[in-house]
Amino acid sequence: MKDTEVLQSLVDALKCLPGVGPKSALRLAYYLLQRNRKGADTLSQSISNALEQLGHCKLCNDFTEQEVCKICSSQKRDVHTICIVEMPSDLLMMEQTHSYKGMYFVLMGRLSPLDGVGPKEIHLDRLIERIKSSEIREIILATNFTAEGNATAQYIKELLKGAEIKMTRIARGLPMGGEIEYIDSGTLAQAVVERKQL
Amino acid sequence: MKDTEVLQSLVDALKCLPGVGPKSALRLAYYLLQRNRKGADTLSQSISNALEQLGHCKLCNDFTEQEVCKICSSQKRDVHTICIVEMPSDLLMMEQTHSYKGMYFVLMGRLSPLDGVGPKEIHLDRLIERIKSSEIREIILATNFTAEGNATAQYIKELLKGAEIKMTRIARGLPMGGEIEYIDSGTLAQAVVERKQL
Repeated sequence: MKDTEVLQSLVDALKCLPGVGPKSALRLAYYLLQRNRKGADTLSQSISNALEQLGHCKLCNDFTEQEVCKICSSQKRDVHTICIVEMPSDLLMMEQTHSYKGMYFVLMGRLSPLDGVGPKEIHLDRLIERIKSSEIREIILATNFTAEGNATAQYIKELLKGAEIKMTRIARGLPMGGEIEYIDSGTLAQAVVERKQL
Repeated sequence: MKDTEVLQSLVDALKCLPGVGPKSALRLAYYLLQRNRKGADTLSQSISNALEQLGHCKLCNDFTEQEVCKICSSQKRDVHTICIVEMPSDLLMMEQTHSYKGMYFVLMGRLSPLDGVGPKEIHLDRLIERIKSSEIREIILATNFTAEGNATAQYIKELLKGAEIKMTRIARGLPMGGEIEYIDSGTLAQAVVERKQL
């Protein structure tokens, strides 16, 4: 019904964003064109800059525009500990706790054979090489506690069997402020099994 | 904590979208960079194309890349009726009813003095000129039934007082499938006042 192909291709392009369907894509398009042309221009440029300039850190695989990211090139971090996370956002969450001062490795995914994601896709070869080439004493497996995250942790554990490196998994249990009445039974069962002596 | 300024500016730019806060902006940025680089590229180009090429139709004020849009240049439309809507999305909704075959005028807003939107901002001068320069016999006021939409309709009505043109407002009442039990009392009162003889 609408004639403008330019508008239509903008709407189609906006639909690539997760959670944006035809209706909200149209709403977003009109918003950008009518009320925030400056923001739209910045957005267009930022996307193209990011696609052009952002690469992966040679060491930890996180996004960076340098060859080696800030964390990996920092002198203040403990180079003997490495924390393995699935996504850059997980790394960010870890950093926000201010409780971890070691290095990272970002898998950029998790093992998921059905989606065609195998060991190669999550850069496990690079991880192994990284661990072998540096003096790592502890590996913290901080993948998610989902089926795929657990499988990924298990796979990495098997892969590094025999290496004289301490391997740990972040703890499972009730969240801070968690109430037993409202927690799922799986978590509660695990919290009982992994109870700690006081 | 993160070093990459390029990533940060992408996140900031994504925050310009309505309903996108810092957390979802980060999620969107990672999504574009990791899982949909092609979509991201298309998005960036589509935005910049749209900003460059899309202008307003000389007649109806809707977005178009031509000087006069498809509807305004169509030979099949009734040029004696003009429907005034607030936004391009309202025009689209009208078109989807397939029940209206006249022309349009898109205000690109509604009167809202508190937000600094006066008669000039919603192009009323162009609307008046358009109506005067063509043989309009009926003006359908299809602004929203909000306070601002009603005020806009009222203002346009006053503005065209004295002109020998039929002026109508789209009907208020219960929606299709509407149940009296669940309708708000304002709508119901209006439906009673504007009752039609059978």
